[in-house]
Amino acid sequence: MALVVQKYGGSSVADPDKIKRVADRIARRVRGGDQVVAVVSAMGDTTDDLIDLAAKITNRPSAREMDVLMHTGEIVSASLMTMALNEAGMEAISLTGQQAGIRTDSVYRRARIAGIDTARMERELQAGRVVIVAGFQGMTDDLDVATFGRGGSDTTAVALAAALGSNRCEIYTDVAGVFSADPRIATKARPLRDIGYDEMLEMATTGAVVMHPRAVEVGALYGVEILVASTFDESAPGTIIHGATTMEQANKVRGIAHQRQVAKVTVRAVPDRPGIASTLFEPLAEANVSVDTIVQNASVEGLTDLTFTVAKDDLDKAVEVVQATLPTLGTTELVTDSELGTVSVIGTGMASAPGYAAQMFRTLFDNGINIELISTSDIRITCLVKRDQVDDAVRALHDAFALDQA
Amino acid sequence: MALVVQKYGGSSVADPDKIKRVADRIARRVRGGDQVVAVVSAMGDTTDDLIDLAAKITNRPSAREMDVLMHTGEIVSASLMTMALNEAGMEAISLTGQQAGIRTDSVYRRARIAGIDTARMERELQAGRVVIVAGFQGMTDDLDVATFGRGGSDTTAVALAAALGSNRCEIYTDVAGVFSADPRIATKARPLRDIGYDEMLEMATTGAVVMHPRAVEVGALYGVEILVASTFDESAPGTIIHGATTMEQANKVRGIAHQRQVAKVTVRAVPDRPGIASTLFEPLAEANVSVDTIVQNASVEGLTDLTFTVAKDDLDKAVEVVQATLPTLGTTELVTDSELGTVSVIGTGMASAPGYAAQMFRTLFDNGINIELISTSDIRITCLVKRDQVDDAVRALHDAFALDQA
Repeated sequence: MALVVQKYGGSSVADPDKIKRVADRIARRVRGGDQVVAVVSAMGDTTDDLIDLAAKITNRPSAREMDVLMHTGEIVSASLMTMALNEAGMEAISLTGQQAGIRTDSVYRRARIAGIDTARMERELQAGRVVIVAGFQGMTDDLDVATFGRGGSDTTAVALAAALGSNRCEIYTDVAGVFSADPRIATKARPLRDIGYDEMLEMATTGAVVMHPRAVEVGALYGVEILVASTFDESAPGTIIHGATTMEQANKVRGIAHQRQVAKVTVRAVPDRPGIASTLFEPLAEANVSVDTIVQNASVEGLTDLTFTVAKDDLDKAVEVVQATLPTLGTTELVTDSELGTVSVIGTGMASAPGYAAQMFRTLFDNGINIELISTSDIRITCLVKRDQVDDAVRALHDAFALDQA
Repeated sequence: MALVVQKYGGSSVADPDKIKRVADRIARRVRGGDQVVAVVSAMGDTTDDLIDLAAKITNRPSAREMDVLMHTGEIVSASLMTMALNEAGMEAISLTGQQAGIRTDSVYRRARIAGIDTARMERELQAGRVVIVAGFQGMTDDLDVATFGRGGSDTTAVALAAALGSNRCEIYTDVAGVFSADPRIATKARPLRDIGYDEMLEMATTGAVVMHPRAVEVGALYGVEILVASTFDESAPGTIIHGATTMEQANKVRGIAHQRQVAKVTVRAVPDRPGIASTLFEPLAEANVSVDTIVQNASVEGLTDLTFTVAKDDLDKAVEVVQATLPTLGTTELVTDSELGTVSVIGTGMASAPGYAAQMFRTLFDNGINIELISTSDIRITCLVKRDQVDDAVRALHDAFALDQA
């Protein structure tokens, strides 16, 4: 008898019929001899609906109250899933994040797990019950509700697997696994059999929104293998995210990721002196604007250009903050471009094989795609391009690196 | 500076605009110098919507999971109300029943309050915050959610007032107070200035669904005066429910209550011997069928008739249970009537003034309304009548006892 921790996303529990189908899937697993802890997200568009409701009341809701509001969606799913399991003849119980023993810090809307007291879950499992846990939430030391941010139910599931001593977590979703690129763009994209934690993190943070990045981090930290697979297509094997290096990973480029909503800010002709970067970026951090790539050009005649990218939604706030720093920086020239996206090539082996960058740039050039900015990590090369060329870039790179071949 | 405990019902918080209007009302009260704890119900039809959702999954949901499901509605209201108060410039915080320190027994769907730990509420009040509490819920000793049943937010509010040492609780709703009869039927019905706890309990349990009966019980037990008044019509004074005898109560009939969905079951020709009542009613209690009035006719030739009433919704279950006991009772004759209602005359002074019963019966007779069954308490006379004569009976009695005159 193995303990299995699963997670079912919002599209998998979007209506009562889907909830019943998932309950049947869980029931089969239990009848096969496993103990199951299943984490559920809010049904379909529930979270968006709750956010819309709050927006009708205020455009600056307190983070604490947003967490109180939003965590109800997962509780609704958890109770309905438990009823569906009961209806399928299973003993089951729903637990809120708090009841599941998930303790968090007090950083509302993006709380981190401080620890998990598994006593209640273990008691329920020993009593022969399926345990259904409301995802993406926990409780602070003050007994307040805190959530992990959008997609945080993945993190709940991987963390519960780690805390319960299980070395595997199953994430069920509406796609067949982690693809070599977005299959809506690259029609030849295929699901990967496996991928490394670090590669998956790069995929997740550069736009392949299959998984919550922190779930991958927790998996890497505690050695929990993560299976990403389809909820309703049980024939598809899915993708294993793990730490092992496999034969397949010798194919050094593993996937193409992209982002569409990127904006660029350039501050021109800044007198070059120590401290200009902190003058610019400290106020942005204080304003909670997340800055992505930063490039500072070589100084020409004592003047330099500073360029950085932000999510398109943050551009207005970024400009407001930067405008205020221009006098201190000693310039008046601020240029923005909000019509950008990124395309990234990701693979563990790339760091030791310099040819990949050249091949990427050549492919984009051959397809008439101009590169606005480049950034790299050990296992990733990202190019900023015009938004309307993102799709072409993804397809061209997927072909160039032959990612359609297993 | 006084501490005020208020409660706003589902129709008062049915949409974001109404929530904002209530927040403004609370904000004015706070600016006037009071500390406010406000209990909120779920928005509009939320509770019904959640029940419908569960019904699509199972027709025998576990009571525990129904409580988990339904308690989310009040939490949504509480967080939105808190945001609306913030937007109106007020410091505020939402608390779930658990966070408000409300401990309950484990009788899901109709839990009773075991105790209230007011420390968190007092801390928030001292910090200058308005405290918004999600109604109708608390937490068991096992940290499970338990609710007080429909209308239970009234009980939350009165219990919080008692626990916080306030001798008054304000229940805001979509009607202007407790009326002398249902104003949709008796057009001359008027809001009472005040009414006794015991009278209100009789009104509530015989169909005037303004308040949760347990809220009245808690008010009586802890001496908390309850104001029932309109949320949006601030010019209406509302009704005070209290223990004092006032001049107005010297008018001995205070109100006319009614119920529409009543059914009658008669078991005929039962051989009269000790124990027949328990043979009949113990199985009904075990099946959770709530029996209202019971009448046993005088025995004729050793045979007696037993008649009782139940809510119309419980009739099928009652008949099933009673059918099974007929052999033991020694009869085969079971007669039912599901097209009945009740009309009740209520007032503290009636017990000592026998003329009221006669006047009630005479009034019904004069209006061609046949009485099927009579039951009385110290302060109430109830007649079972045909359902299609309930409205006529209410109007006739309201006129006969001159309840349109203050």
